[in-house]
Amino acid sequence: MTRLFNDPAAFADEALEGFVAAHPHRVRQVPGGVVRATRTAPGQVAVVVGGGSGHYPAFSGLVGQGLAHGAAVGNVFASPSAHQVRQVAKAAQTGGGVLLAYGNYAGDVLHFGQAAEQLTAEGIPARTLGVTDDISSASAAEAHKRRGVAGDLVVFKAAAAAAEAGHDLAEVTRIAELANARTRSFGVAFSGCTLPGADHPLFTVPEDRMAVGLGIHGEPGMGEQPVPSADEAAELLVSTVLGELPEGVDSPRGQRAAVILNGLGSVKYEELFVVYRRVAQLLHEAGVEAVDPEVGELVTSFDMAGVSLTLCWLTDELEPLWTAPADAPAYRKGTVEAADLISEGPAEQAVEEPVPAATEESRAAARTVLAALRTLKSTVDTHADELGRIDAVAGDGDHGIGMQRGSTGAYEAAVRAEQLGAGAETLLHRAADAWADKAGGTSGALWGVILRAIGTALGDTGRPTAPVVAAGVAEAAAGVMRLGGAEVGDKTMVDVLVPFAGALTTATADGQPLSIAWDTAASTAAAAAAATADLLPRMGRARPHAEKSLGTPDAGAHSLALIVRAVHPVLAPTLEIR
Amino acid sequence: MTRLFNDPAAFADEALEGFVAAHPHRVRQVPGGVVRATRTAPGQVAVVVGGGSGHYPAFSGLVGQGLAHGAAVGNVFASPSAHQVRQVAKAAQTGGGVLLAYGNYAGDVLHFGQAAEQLTAEGIPARTLGVTDDISSASAAEAHKRRGVAGDLVVFKAAAAAAEAGHDLAEVTRIAELANARTRSFGVAFSGCTLPGADHPLFTVPEDRMAVGLGIHGEPGMGEQPVPSADEAAELLVSTVLGELPEGVDSPRGQRAAVILNGLGSVKYEELFVVYRRVAQLLHEAGVEAVDPEVGELVTSFDMAGVSLTLCWLTDELEPLWTAPADAPAYRKGTVEAADLISEGPAEQAVEEPVPAATEESRAAARTVLAALRTLKSTVDTHADELGRIDAVAGDGDHGIGMQRGSTGAYEAAVRAEQLGAGAETLLHRAADAWADKAGGTSGALWGVILRAIGTALGDTGRPTAPVVAAGVAEAAAGVMRLGGAEVGDKTMVDVLVPFAGALTTATADGQPLSIAWDTAASTAAAAAAATADLLPRMGRARPHAEKSLGTPDAGAHSLALIVRAVHPVLAPTLEIR
Repeated sequence: MTRLFNDPAAFADEALEGFVAAHPHRVRQVPGGVVRATRTAPGQVAVVVGGGSGHYPAFSGLVGQGLAHGAAVGNVFASPSAHQVRQVAKAAQTGGGVLLAYGNYAGDVLHFGQAAEQLTAEGIPARTLGVTDDISSASAAEAHKRRGVAGDLVVFKAAAAAAEAGHDLAEVTRIAELANARTRSFGVAFSGCTLPGADHPLFTVPEDRMAVGLGIHGEPGMGEQPVPSADEAAELLVSTVLGELPEGVDSPRGQRAAVILNGLGSVKYEELFVVYRRVAQLLHEAGVEAVDPEVGELVTSFDMAGVSLTLCWLTDELEPLWTAPADAPAYRKGTVEAADLISEGPAEQAVEEPVPAATEESRAAARTVLAALRTLKSTVDTHADELGRIDAVAGDGDHGIGMQRGSTGAYEAAVRAEQLGAGAETLLHRAADAWADKAGGTSGALWGVILRAIGTALGDTGRPTAPVVAAGVAEAAAGVMRLGGAEVGDKTMVDVLVPFAGALTTATADGQPLSIAWDTAASTAAAAAAATADLLPRMGRARPHAEKSLGTPDAGAHSLALIVRAVHPVLAPTLEIR
Repeated sequence: MTRLFNDPAAFADEALEGFVAAHPHRVRQVPGGVVRATRTAPGQVAVVVGGGSGHYPAFSGLVGQGLAHGAAVGNVFASPSAHQVRQVAKAAQTGGGVLLAYGNYAGDVLHFGQAAEQLTAEGIPARTLGVTDDISSASAAEAHKRRGVAGDLVVFKAAAAAAEAGHDLAEVTRIAELANARTRSFGVAFSGCTLPGADHPLFTVPEDRMAVGLGIHGEPGMGEQPVPSADEAAELLVSTVLGELPEGVDSPRGQRAAVILNGLGSVKYEELFVVYRRVAQLLHEAGVEAVDPEVGELVTSFDMAGVSLTLCWLTDELEPLWTAPADAPAYRKGTVEAADLISEGPAEQAVEEPVPAATEESRAAARTVLAALRTLKSTVDTHADELGRIDAVAGDGDHGIGMQRGSTGAYEAAVRAEQLGAGAETLLHRAADAWADKAGGTSGALWGVILRAIGTALGDTGRPTAPVVAAGVAEAAAGVMRLGGAEVGDKTMVDVLVPFAGALTTATADGQPLSIAWDTAASTAAAAAAATADLLPRMGRARPHAEKSLGTPDAGAHSLALIVRAVHPVLAPTLEIR
């Protein structure tokens, strides 16, 4: 379990601060994460990686010459926000565009994808690549749905070495895709980690049993077996990985492969070496030449007891990229030609952007929105433990803490915006960015979308009417479905948001005042949230033991219903709005 | 706990094999451990380190250019034998002599000390240095009794960098002693590890409690406290280490220090960084400049949950040695000038040394000794679990397995010697070397002494008389006391060996036949072993919760008494010997 922390909510930030203090010659901290402390050649493609905290050396430990140019660092097990990714990318890029590379998880896909769009819109060409090496997470036919594990390292390294060699963004992206297509991982686990401040492990495996193919956050695997001997574990890992050769590789014999035997946290070095002894024998027997094998902790999950094997089937193009020198805090290879350290000037003062002009009517609406955000935050605070417990039934139990981080950040940004005289749109947009930024993860991105859509509907001029509010909520529902890819019936917040938006639209179109319409819609929402208890989660959601959640509502649906009910009294002053 | 292993007795060997397979360009395996795979300049002092397995990267992971020239690798948590150390030193040395450096534990002190004597006798100048950085293990007044923990790294590195710089053995030793004198560590722990194949953790710490100053094998610490916050843990570590400045350092202010924040196994990277964040702040406030800090796993105890802070107060002489480049499997720094790889010739065939000529009478005696060794081995096998349980009351529970390794090795060597026609002396000498070699640890060394002393007394010519056997046993007792430093009453095997030798001497001097005398002496031994249950272990033995052992005999004393009783029937054919 994780024992040493201060405020659990500050864990990821404090870890990053300590990491940077320990590695001042390799990395420097920027808003959203870290970038290389060394100068990068102008025009070089920047490879920016990232993901949640708790997986060190992924992702910050992989920043340095020959490896990543920067890493966006999210909260514990939560994706960084699009805003964070964008900030890190802008600090890392030197004019050659940016490849954003990350493990293929829902939250990361959302945020890195948004960041790429925004960067491109700002004139910084950006491409994305979600690593999909874990063969236990989806069938070969659905390889694009697979999640990324220790194969991240091979893909990041190939891309970065290609960037250092001067290739352009299209070529670096092609090489990263090639490396990803030829990389396969498979892992087993004996126990899960307990996150900082949590009471219980994220998941458990029965004693004397081994979970086969379990994900690093406890995502469902392929079953359980008795704990094997080290040699048997090696045989399972090798036979499974060799059992799915990439396109163009007909037989292992005569192939050369990058090999990673990765410890997840508390399967320790000597155990890994005992397993590797047999892995090396088996690869040799299969005719595979292991090139620069790595045996150690490359992608962890705190102290999760697990081990995974990764092979990247090298080509003539990929091999020199794998063997190229690198010099990151947690990954060093060969000898890099040391680049100049960037001498940091005086720390940049964050300049607060002025708010656009707003009418008095919109500023009044903004004050109502602010009051609603205050209520939202206190509602989340009151229910945080309950939300965590509900989420823990079938998920990773962090919904309460994520909602707290997001709603607190949103409220604080809104307070500041109101002080600056913001209208409703600007206030909600700033709250939206702050929510996504502070919460990270999937729900952070989706709540960012909700607040932003409503803000856009309200505008910074004029007095919002009830139909306008309803239209904003409807647009929010559409945006959440678009971004999150879920539909009604998937047991997500969409199951509440869509009927809520529908009820609000119908009632306001009938000419009901906002407060009355909202009251009706909130009841609809509560019923819809309760109904999620009877559903199974959507396929592919990263949730272990999904069947356990039968009888328990979805945490995201439940929190949304609580919130729309709680903010109703705040909307009473808008009773007369039609 | 350790989950992945095959035969627990083969764990250390298999781990070493896998380690070498993973790092073929840095290390090569030699009998007894590993040496650099790269060529070392002729005449350079070789720094040979070592200790038990289970502490990776200590010790094999620290072999490479700029760091150790070789590592003798013992069994799990057991010192390598003197024979292993000697073999590794001979493979590593290039004519400049050898500095043997290790953590200051009883078994290591015995074996490395013996090895140094033997090497010097063979014309290879050798010096020893036991690292004593752990300030919780003895008072400042008894600093020479302190054990070595993560400070090993600083001392090894200073010595190796001095060797690379061309200093001679005396100077390298002086520098290592200087580094050791200026290095201080202090650690805390939350849980112990479970060794491969063991049922129980080596030690436990109550939940929500933290053991302060506990040793990495569960040696007693300074007490317990509630689990602190990360910042509080940092404050405890820093204030304790700054609380004992080395000679010549009056105040931390203005000092420069090598800093290591070491995780013992399952306190993971992000936790370490959260702690380091505060450590860095506190050192800065105290006016200490951290030079090339290391935050990570440098000395582990499998998955023990613990963390330690090490400071080496640098001098102008030590700082460049700390910052010098190094390239070992688990420790890389700066850029080394790559040395040539040693191209391995065909593996050397171990040439079996012929046995010296022996008389038929001595060969007959050797056959009796062989039968006794067979009985000894089967006795140990039968009682191995019991010995482990007794040892676990106050020790690390490995007495059974250590005795099995030793007695099996001794018996096998004796079988081979008998086939070659060895006399009693040669057979026992070979058995003695094999016991020490296979068992490692303190008891391995002491049993090696016992068999060797008896062998020397018996000789390779003539028929041993009862007084000669008794004289051999008496010499064995004297040798064990000399080497182990224990006296009667310290609750060790000495409590049995000395009265057994005394009774045997008295009875044989009275003219009793050996078998009768042995029977009497074995009864004395049994009584003496039982009496150890009423004693507290000798001060300074590496045993936690020593007081728990009241009421339980010493495992080493108990096994010795069992053995002398069990071999009695085998000695029946020698009944007539007087």
